[in-house]
Amino acid sequence: MKTSLECIPCFLRQALDAARLAGTDPSVHEAVLRKVMDLASRMDLTQAPPLTGQKIHRIIRVLTGGGDPYRAIKERYNRFALGLYPELKQRVRLAEDPFATAVRLAIAGNLIDFGVRSDLSEDDVRRELEATLSAPIDAEALETFRRAVDVARHVFYIADNAGEIVFDRLLIEQMLPRKVTLAVRGHAVINDATREDARAAGLTDLVEEVVDNGGDVPGVLLGDVPETFRRAFDQADVVVAKGQGNYETLSDAPREVFFLVKAKCPVIADDIGCKTGAVVVTRRVPAERVT
Amino acid sequence: MKTSLECIPCFLRQALDAARLAGTDPSVHEAVLRKVMDLASRMDLTQAPPLTGQKIHRIIRVLTGGGDPYRAIKERYNRFALGLYPELKQRVRLAEDPFATAVRLAIAGNLIDFGVRSDLSEDDVRRELEATLSAPIDAEALETFRRAVDVARHVFYIADNAGEIVFDRLLIEQMLPRKVTLAVRGHAVINDATREDARAAGLTDLVEEVVDNGGDVPGVLLGDVPETFRRAFDQADVVVAKGQGNYETLSDAPREVFFLVKAKCPVIADDIGCKTGAVVVTRRVPAERVT
Repeated sequence: MKTSLECIPCFLRQALDAARLAGTDPSVHEAVLRKVMDLASRMDLTQAPPLTGQKIHRIIRVLTGGGDPYRAIKERYNRFALGLYPELKQRVRLAEDPFATAVRLAIAGNLIDFGVRSDLSEDDVRRELEATLSAPIDAEALETFRRAVDVARHVFYIADNAGEIVFDRLLIEQMLPRKVTLAVRGHAVINDATREDARAAGLTDLVEEVVDNGGDVPGVLLGDVPETFRRAFDQADVVVAKGQGNYETLSDAPREVFFLVKAKCPVIADDIGCKTGAVVVTRRVPAERVT
Repeated sequence: MKTSLECIPCFLRQALDAARLAGTDPSVHEAVLRKVMDLASRMDLTQAPPLTGQKIHRIIRVLTGGGDPYRAIKERYNRFALGLYPELKQRVRLAEDPFATAVRLAIAGNLIDFGVRSDLSEDDVRRELEATLSAPIDAEALETFRRAVDVARHVFYIADNAGEIVFDRLLIEQMLPRKVTLAVRGHAVINDATREDARAAGLTDLVEEVVDNGGDVPGVLLGDVPETFRRAFDQADVVVAKGQGNYETLSDAPREVFFLVKAKCPVIADDIGCKTGAVVVTRRVPAERVT
C-alpha cells in the first residue's frame, strides 16, 4: 500500500508524541520535528507507510539518546491485558461461538496502537472490547478464515502490538497452538510487539516457534525478512496478519493473507473499503482481491 | 502567542485541506505539502501561528493557480448563517438576557473555522448553537465586558470568519452599532472574513466604519496594519477580538482586549487556561493577565 498525503501530518504528530514520551526537553522535541519534516519533504510516497515509520523512529531514537520511548507503555499494556486475560478467556469459553469471539477480541486488542493514538487509556480499551463483541463483521470472511484455520497444518500469525499480543493469545488458543508460528518485530519500534512481548504474553512456550522480521520496520518487508521468517510465511497453509502496519506492507503480498484489523484511520479504511473504526476480517489473494 | 510544536502537524493538515479545496490534481496536493514541509522545517516558532498561516496560504494560492480555495465555502456559510439569522435574532429578542445570548451566539459562530476543521457541516453549526446557549461561561468576565460596552463611546470589533460574521451582527446589534468600527482581513486567507463578507452579512451599512488589517494575515499584526486600523484599535474604549487567529496575534497586545472565542484546539485552550471546546469570554490587559 502506498503512502497517502494524509499520512504526512499523522507522521509528524506521531514523531512529536514519541519525542515527548522519550523525554521532556522541548529543544529535543523541536529538533525531532524539524528533522522529520526535512525527511518527509523528500519522502517516496510509493513506499508503504511503515518504511517512513521506520526512518522516523530511528531519527527519534538517535536524537533522544538511543532508548525505546515506548518501553514503559508496552510493559504497562502487557500487564493490563494480562490482568484482563482470565476474564476474557472465560468469556471465550462460555461464548456460543468461541472462535468468533476470540477473533473479535483479537481485533479489539488492535486498538492498543500508539502509532495512531498516544492518548489511549485503559478505559478506552475496555470500552472497545465491549463494542467489538457486538460490532458488525464480515460473516463470510470470518467463515472462510475459520475453515482455512481448521484444515491448516501450519498457521503463520504475524502479531502487531504489545498489549494486543495478549488478545492474540486468546485466538491462538482457539487454534491448535502447536501448529502456529508467531512472528514479531526484530527490534523495538513504536509499541510493536517483539520477542520480549511474546514472552510476556505467555506465547513463547505455547506456539511452535517465534520468528521475527529481522529489524525495526513496523510491518513486514518480505524482501528484508530473515530466511526463517520468509520460509514460514511462504510455507504456511494460513497466514494471519494483525493490524495496520502489517496490512500496509502485506496487502499486495504474493500469497493469500487473512488480515484482522481495526481500521483506525481513514486511509486504511479507504483502502480496505470499510468505514473508519470498522472491525475487519478480510482475505487478500494475489492478482485479484477478495474481501 | 508563540507557535507550539503541536501546530505543525495541524498546519500540514490545513495545507492539504486547502490544496484539495483548490483542485483535484494529486500532484499539486503533493507539491503543496512538500513545499509547506520545507517551509515548516525552517519556521520561526517564536512567531504567532497566523504568520505561518499567511505564508502557507500564499504557497497554496501560488501553486494552485492564484484563486481563493475557500471562496465557495465562504459564500455558502454566509448564506447559511443569513438563513438562520431571522430565527436567531428572534431568540435574542425574546431572551431573558439578550446581550448574553448574543455573546453566546457570536462565540458559537466561531465554530465556522475551516482552518481548524475542513469537514465541518451545517448540522455541526446548528448543534453548536444549541450547545453554546447552555454551555458554562465566565459570568464575571461577561459582566465586565457588558459594562465596558455599555459605557464605551467607541467599540472596535475585530471579526474572524465568513459565516461567523453574521453571528457577530447579532452581538453588534446589541451594542449601539453606530459606535462600532468593524475590522476584517484585507485579503482572502482561509475562510477569514473580508469587506465582501461584512457586506454580505449586512454590517457595512450598520456600523460606523469598516477597516481592514491591510493584508492576508489570518489575525492582526499591529506593526503591519494600516493607519486607519491602528488608530481605531488604539483609540477605542473597548476592543473585541473574535476567534483563534485574533487571539494568537493579540493576546499580548499593548492594550486591553476582550476575546470571544471557541477554544477549538488544545494549544489555544492551554494558553487561555480552559478546556478544549470551551466557550470563552476573556479579558487581557498588558503587564498582567486577567481572565
